[in-house]
Amino acid sequence: MACNILVLNIGSTSFKFKYFDMDTETVIASGKIGSVFTDKSDYVFEVNGEKQEGFLDATSGYKPCLERVFSLIDEKCDGGKNAVDGIGFKTVMAGDTNFPCVLDDTVLDKMQEYSIVAPAHNTPYIEAVRVVWELFPGVVTVGSFETSFHNTIPDYAAMYPIDKEMAEKYGIRKYGFHGAAHSYAAYKLSSEGYNAKNIISVHLGGSSSVCAIKDGKSVDTSMGFSPQSGIPMNNRCGDVDVFSILYLMEKENMDSKQMRGFLSTKCGLLGMGGSNDMRVIEQQENSPVIEAYTYSTAKYICSFLAALGNVDAISFSGGIGENSISVKKSICERLSFLGVELDDSKMNEKLDTEPLLISTNSSKVKVYITPVDEELMVAKNTYTFIERR
Amino acid sequence: MACNILVLNIGSTSFKFKYFDMDTETVIASGKIGSVFTDKSDYVFEVNGEKQEGFLDATSGYKPCLERVFSLIDEKCDGGKNAVDGIGFKTVMAGDTNFPCVLDDTVLDKMQEYSIVAPAHNTPYIEAVRVVWELFPGVVTVGSFETSFHNTIPDYAAMYPIDKEMAEKYGIRKYGFHGAAHSYAAYKLSSEGYNAKNIISVHLGGSSSVCAIKDGKSVDTSMGFSPQSGIPMNNRCGDVDVFSILYLMEKENMDSKQMRGFLSTKCGLLGMGGSNDMRVIEQQENSPVIEAYTYSTAKYICSFLAALGNVDAISFSGGIGENSISVKKSICERLSFLGVELDDSKMNEKLDTEPLLISTNSSKVKVYITPVDEELMVAKNTYTFIERR
Repeated sequence: MACNILVLNIGSTSFKFKYFDMDTETVIASGKIGSVFTDKSDYVFEVNGEKQEGFLDATSGYKPCLERVFSLIDEKCDGGKNAVDGIGFKTVMAGDTNFPCVLDDTVLDKMQEYSIVAPAHNTPYIEAVRVVWELFPGVVTVGSFETSFHNTIPDYAAMYPIDKEMAEKYGIRKYGFHGAAHSYAAYKLSSEGYNAKNIISVHLGGSSSVCAIKDGKSVDTSMGFSPQSGIPMNNRCGDVDVFSILYLMEKENMDSKQMRGFLSTKCGLLGMGGSNDMRVIEQQENSPVIEAYTYSTAKYICSFLAALGNVDAISFSGGIGENSISVKKSICERLSFLGVELDDSKMNEKLDTEPLLISTNSSKVKVYITPVDEELMVAKNTYTFIERR
Repeated sequence: MACNILVLNIGSTSFKFKYFDMDTETVIASGKIGSVFTDKSDYVFEVNGEKQEGFLDATSGYKPCLERVFSLIDEKCDGGKNAVDGIGFKTVMAGDTNFPCVLDDTVLDKMQEYSIVAPAHNTPYIEAVRVVWELFPGVVTVGSFETSFHNTIPDYAAMYPIDKEMAEKYGIRKYGFHGAAHSYAAYKLSSEGYNAKNIISVHLGGSSSVCAIKDGKSVDTSMGFSPQSGIPMNNRCGDVDVFSILYLMEKENMDSKQMRGFLSTKCGLLGMGGSNDMRVIEQQENSPVIEAYTYSTAKYICSFLAALGNVDAISFSGGIGENSISVKKSICERLSFLGVELDDSKMNEKLDTEPLLISTNSSKVKVYITPVDEELMVAKNTYTFIERR
């Protein structure tokens, strides 16, 4: 039976969508809408090879944007809106609800509860899901949480060294994020032609994390309870000593809410280097920021050898992971003890949809740039879920 | 010219001392006093091969204990108190005053300022130093801060991914601790007969940290701004996601002071496993706590390969590092990709003062148990300082 899944990837001021035919795993329609919440929101849609571009008034938020997407599908795609079997959302976190599930008020309340943990992520999703319910009543909405790929991380690697009762009462543990991106790397690089068993997936973008994958499963990752831990992000902190933060709170007379705002908007690359754009940071002379970033990433990669024992493939993805040659080189120089050798001539090759090998033939570890299709992984999770019903 | 240095290693309810002849680096007298602040404080002194044991009334704190130490030196050691050229303290942290220096009110004020960062450490030192000034006026007192060995950590490894101005204003950076222990491992294992250049020093005790050493210098370490970060301690937390702590503060309505107390007394091994004694934790069946501890330690060791490239020697020290065979085995199993092989038959050999090799002859990395002489390193720092004056 044919099954069509629409995937919504919601950002705080933009969103992307892909509409899949799951029999063939091909894209029927796709698009991106930027500058949501402004009166001149730019959009690009592609359906049946035909491109539509323009602006729409999105002052009121996601509603006018989603109306446009639904009418596009209704008018241009076979079977119209009726052919949509389900809508998958790349939702971020809802504590221990960290598995794909049908979205309802209970789940949205849980997401709301954790919106203080993932402030840049949960709020837009909650809003967008409610708009979908209003505009498309009766459609099955599935949340494919970014944490769900990391359910396989063993307890000893996921627990924090704090009071056990407190940890259990409030669900304080490592959840991990970027599940769609890391699971795509796992899915792709373990498939025929690549055959990697032990993979380290390095997703570097506005938000960045590293994941250790064994036999297709996540066994550890750099992000923890929140998506603000691990390596530095564009403007979110990454790992810090909690005592330095408690010290700052007292010195600056900040409460926990103010500190959360500080750590999730004024830190990371922006805080250290004055810009949240890696391309700007890369131009700065005599700055330790790039090396702080690549050293932190290399340390995570190395630390995961304690989980994997050896590594077959390293996969770079995300905006920085795909595009920055200097970042990849700086990280891989620190991995030469593993026999990692990059091939400079391959680094500039144009990316297609398949992973691009950028290591030399004699490199003991294969290094790839993997253009990750996060929406496909969300569609697969949603499809599995709808099939099971 | 002969130079005698007395070293005081102050704990919160106990302290140790060693009185050195620095020409020969030999110990003239030494001792340990336990249960300070009780009316039955046990002591063991050793001077000229003669042992003294007993109890003293230490209800009022360090004063009666230090009086006893000073009169021991005055009565039993050549030259009496007049022969003491300086007193070295294994002080912990005073922010950017992270180098050996003469202790005065300014430095003590700085230590006071950072006592909220190192609550278990700074307060007892401040008190003990003031008692020494009172009982032994005119003596040179030198603070050999536990952070000072880590001055050589490069900026990119020491900076936190937070707002630069805020970091500079409040001295928020990685300081690192256990300098006396790690510098002893560096000093010993780089000396003739061992000749290790790249060393990873693993100090596991009530308080634990890992240090990457290149050519005798610290290049990275697991503790950061405070001695509560890195691997889990007996009752102090180790690394946690700061957003989980801010979340807990709101849920439990705790302020930063209460949270500091929680993180530095109810967490670590005690929080996870219900006991702050590793020997008790090791007896627990089906508990993930031991593996959480050894996995965290192994991850730090592996992460430092990003700094060192390769490793010649791994050194275990501290109470757990010296005594727990299962902890060492569990950590080293995760390092087999480096060619680390432990020799079970060597693990039970009696420790002397020299490092004990516990790896096989074919092991690609030499593994040692190093009984660290922290007081000797403090004495050396103090001596260098007194010589320079």
